[in-house]
Amino acid sequence: MRLISYRLNGEMGVGTMVDESSAVALTKVAPDLPRTLKQILELDDGLERVRAAVDGRIADIALDDITLDPVIPDPHAIWALALNFQMHIQETSLTTSAEHPQIFLRTPASQVGHGQSMVCPRPKVAKTYDYEGELAVIIGRGGRYIDEADALDHVAGYACYNEGSVREFQNHNRQFGLGKNFENSGSFGPWMVTADEFGNPSSHTVTTRLNGVEKQHCGFDEMLFSVEQVIRYLSTGYSLRSGDVIVMGTPGALPPGPDYVPEAQDSDRILGRTHMKAGDVVEVEISGIGTLVNPIIASD
Amino acid sequence: MRLISYRLNGEMGVGTMVDESSAVALTKVAPDLPRTLKQILELDDGLERVRAAVDGRIADIALDDITLDPVIPDPHAIWALALNFQMHIQETSLTTSAEHPQIFLRTPASQVGHGQSMVCPRPKVAKTYDYEGELAVIIGRGGRYIDEADALDHVAGYACYNEGSVREFQNHNRQFGLGKNFENSGSFGPWMVTADEFGNPSSHTVTTRLNGVEKQHCGFDEMLFSVEQVIRYLSTGYSLRSGDVIVMGTPGALPPGPDYVPEAQDSDRILGRTHMKAGDVVEVEISGIGTLVNPIIASD
Repeated sequence: MRLISYRLNGEMGVGTMVDESSAVALTKVAPDLPRTLKQILELDDGLERVRAAVDGRIADIALDDITLDPVIPDPHAIWALALNFQMHIQETSLTTSAEHPQIFLRTPASQVGHGQSMVCPRPKVAKTYDYEGELAVIIGRGGRYIDEADALDHVAGYACYNEGSVREFQNHNRQFGLGKNFENSGSFGPWMVTADEFGNPSSHTVTTRLNGVEKQHCGFDEMLFSVEQVIRYLSTGYSLRSGDVIVMGTPGALPPGPDYVPEAQDSDRILGRTHMKAGDVVEVEISGIGTLVNPIIASD
Repeated sequence: MRLISYRLNGEMGVGTMVDESSAVALTKVAPDLPRTLKQILELDDGLERVRAAVDGRIADIALDDITLDPVIPDPHAIWALALNFQMHIQETSLTTSAEHPQIFLRTPASQVGHGQSMVCPRPKVAKTYDYEGELAVIIGRGGRYIDEADALDHVAGYACYNEGSVREFQNHNRQFGLGKNFENSGSFGPWMVTADEFGNPSSHTVTTRLNGVEKQHCGFDEMLFSVEQVIRYLSTGYSLRSGDVIVMGTPGALPPGPDYVPEAQDSDRILGRTHMKAGDVVEVEISGIGTLVNPIIASD
């Protein structure tokens, strides 16, 4: 089951995808369910009630007629991992602990939904605005002190995440801070695929494309810390909540192809990486989920 | 004017303090105002309407009868500064940029209100749970690209913050992550003093006490980055929102007094710092605001 969070005529709604271009609106077939996906996930039987309500229904909304929001527009926390792939550690020359994941937070305002514009900072503010294709894990049933063996039982589903980053600000100081939190700099979608359909995260791959050119491609079996390990780690200090998002880190850049032109402003000198600019289109595709597509626009 | 966020019989409310032990409930004198302080701050004339509504009213709730919540229980973002006082940089031997503030985020779940219990991690999880007395800045009117000259016009008021930190987790990796986000590890209160009454932040001082013993005492004129500078910095990337919180960093530890006993578990070797344990009482007092008091309890 693929669930979307959307707006239609200013009203928020949740729907389930029927095919690649249309969905069933829950407001019509299940008016007694809450209006946000986070609230549905807070119910013990939320996803089961959705499944029962949409069973056999035909699509009643077209994706072209609605605005897709981030899969969870209003999570309590968006936890994100830095340096969770060996190739990304090598290309950045940064160091990270082998024992504990490296964790930072993003704010809800830093993300948009599928098809919405991601915003490139003003050139006077920053010049190195980068894609990061990643797997987003969406918590269903919350909990504290979760064992690795039980961790995946707390996952409601998965989505694509473009963990857009402003490198100059990220490098301003030791904590990433604002560099990972420019307004509308990241993207989260297009939908949540439920955990039962997605299966084992490590059997899937992520591909990032900029203007159609493949820039990242990697299997999640190369993650240094697994979804289970990160859920265990976070829950030692914090009760994970329904709708919380864990973004699992990005792989390295692919080696540049024959057409690659190094950029003058590429001060971080990562071969094969291309910064995003207004007018670009960026895609993050994950096998078993689909493709998150966003145009890049200039900051006003 | 001093505003509180509270709960009474499970209902959220906002009030204004009349004296040290009683308040006027806005639900009664201004039932048309929103029920949360964040929503009141979102109104252009929210604080003026509160002021008019409570003018001349006598107290109708006693602090003893209500539960004080964090001043803003549900901010969109809690931005926090690391290493914003020279004395704290020296005692930690950490480095920080002289040009840009060092910024990280806390989640709403990491904080409690005045009088509520702050939670010490299980000893098997972590042994170094520390107070950090800090100034909390509460945004009134939001905005982007705010000049330093206009920055204080965007501040609704100020409160005390105990930026409770779990050092082992903070030191797990380069990003502070979970170490600054243990559940109920920090505190925010007791109330918001409006900016007009508080005046210039740099004319005030913070004092932290553990079990009545003074552990930190410093003037905000020693902050390396001022409130104005941090508002300008954050707003280059992000539209500050009504109710957002900026926590301005903590000074160093005071030199230990004659009764000081160094702790065996004091692995970070900061002279004069004492870790918090269940049964302790911690206070953060800021001149012009008041004192935020919290008992420490053991994690269940």
